[in-house]
Amino acid sequence: MTLTLTPVPGLPMFQPGQKLSQILLRAMESAAINIEDDDVLVVAQKIVSKVEGRLVNLNDVIPSARALELAQVTGKDPRFVELVLSESSEVLRTRFNTLIVEHRLGFVCANAGIDHSNVCGPYGNPDDWTLLLPIDPDASAAQIRQDIQAATGKNIGVLIIDSHGRAWRMGVVGAAIGVSGLPALVDKRGDPDLFGYQLRVTTIAAADELAAAASLVMGQADEGQPVVHVRGFPYPLREGSLRELIRPRDLDLFR
Amino acid sequence: MTLTLTPVPGLPMFQPGQKLSQILLRAMESAAINIEDDDVLVVAQKIVSKVEGRLVNLNDVIPSARALELAQVTGKDPRFVELVLSESSEVLRTRFNTLIVEHRLGFVCANAGIDHSNVCGPYGNPDDWTLLLPIDPDASAAQIRQDIQAATGKNIGVLIIDSHGRAWRMGVVGAAIGVSGLPALVDKRGDPDLFGYQLRVTTIAAADELAAAASLVMGQADEGQPVVHVRGFPYPLREGSLRELIRPRDLDLFR
Repeated sequence: MTLTLTPVPGLPMFQPGQKLSQILLRAMESAAINIEDDDVLVVAQKIVSKVEGRLVNLNDVIPSARALELAQVTGKDPRFVELVLSESSEVLRTRFNTLIVEHRLGFVCANAGIDHSNVCGPYGNPDDWTLLLPIDPDASAAQIRQDIQAATGKNIGVLIIDSHGRAWRMGVVGAAIGVSGLPALVDKRGDPDLFGYQLRVTTIAAADELAAAASLVMGQADEGQPVVHVRGFPYPLREGSLRELIRPRDLDLFR
Repeated sequence: MTLTLTPVPGLPMFQPGQKLSQILLRAMESAAINIEDDDVLVVAQKIVSKVEGRLVNLNDVIPSARALELAQVTGKDPRFVELVLSESSEVLRTRFNTLIVEHRLGFVCANAGIDHSNVCGPYGNPDDWTLLLPIDPDASAAQIRQDIQAATGKNIGVLIIDSHGRAWRMGVVGAAIGVSGLPALVDKRGDPDLFGYQLRVTTIAAADELAAAASLVMGQADEGQPVVHVRGFPYPLREGSLRELIRPRDLDLFR
């Protein structure tokens, strides 16, 4: 089956307090993008965070001693580092320009996923604003899914994604940070394929593969495409969660 | 623009010595998949390795002392470990069931990407056969591209992919191991998007994002879909290489 990823055109600048699902439904209707059963909507983290009001002004942050210390090592604003620490359960790697943490949500990423560049808060200097990840991205995804299912009567999945670096490879790729209504992992252990190869892989990170695919479409960010409509996701939809993707500490190859 | 990924149906079992491009062209013609300028073909590593004759019978391998030692730690066949060592420039992590190396091609992966399960060699016990990665996947991709461009007159990209695990996250995702005619990395440093967010990301691993997307489509491997036709890759095609994706040792966060 063909997999089709279509950016939803005509989305506005998002503001805290807006109802994302309502805006998405309207934009998809205008663009003649129909929602069908088993479709998936992929949503960039930044617009979810924005409507959920996860903006923090750096002038409201008082850095701790630990933040001051890490700011020295990384060359980052101590107030920004304080925010990163407040969103993290562990600091894993620091060097100049690099601050890799375990996010309180369990995954590993740089800067706890906090945006700090031209975030455009409601007042003052744009440079003072940062944008934190949603409080509970699985719940954010579930809410969007529930609203869209209620409006359309269709059974869909919703995926919230961010861009993550990798330990071993250059460049960032889209990665799932919130999952509702689709499998994050798909177990293919032992399935032989038609070509007679036993599958070497054990478990496919389907939600991360879809996140990367949608990120490719969003990547032309100067065209502003934070939502992607997906048809042809090849696995049966089911309840899913970011938690499936988090490597248990004892299997972590990094620490 | 919509990104469309379509598996090429009707591909045969591949054999050493076959001309991959010829078989692909025939299969695409039968399936009425037209090649246009700027299309990309994504090809699973295993069929490239197979036609290139990268099969090795474990009975032809004599394990070194180092292989015997690592076989003990990992619980793997010492002859298999010997092959992994012969394809690697460095062993990075070992534990039971786990052998993470830097492949001689420069990237980090488990088992040097060697398949050892039901590989189906030309004779004897299937369990004795292994399948190594192509000698030079960039060159393999370039050859397929050149052949298809010569036959169709269209300017395309060709990507060879494998499935890789990640240090921090569960499950495998598609990753580029051979690149020709498309950018592996796309530099988006400093581009602001229409929503007024300065892009926090620096460089997008576009080839890995496409690899993950195609892997999602191939993932239904019981249906046998090792080649995916892509329309709508959102970046301008150019010469490209796996080398762009390899993190220089001094920037590696793992070692």
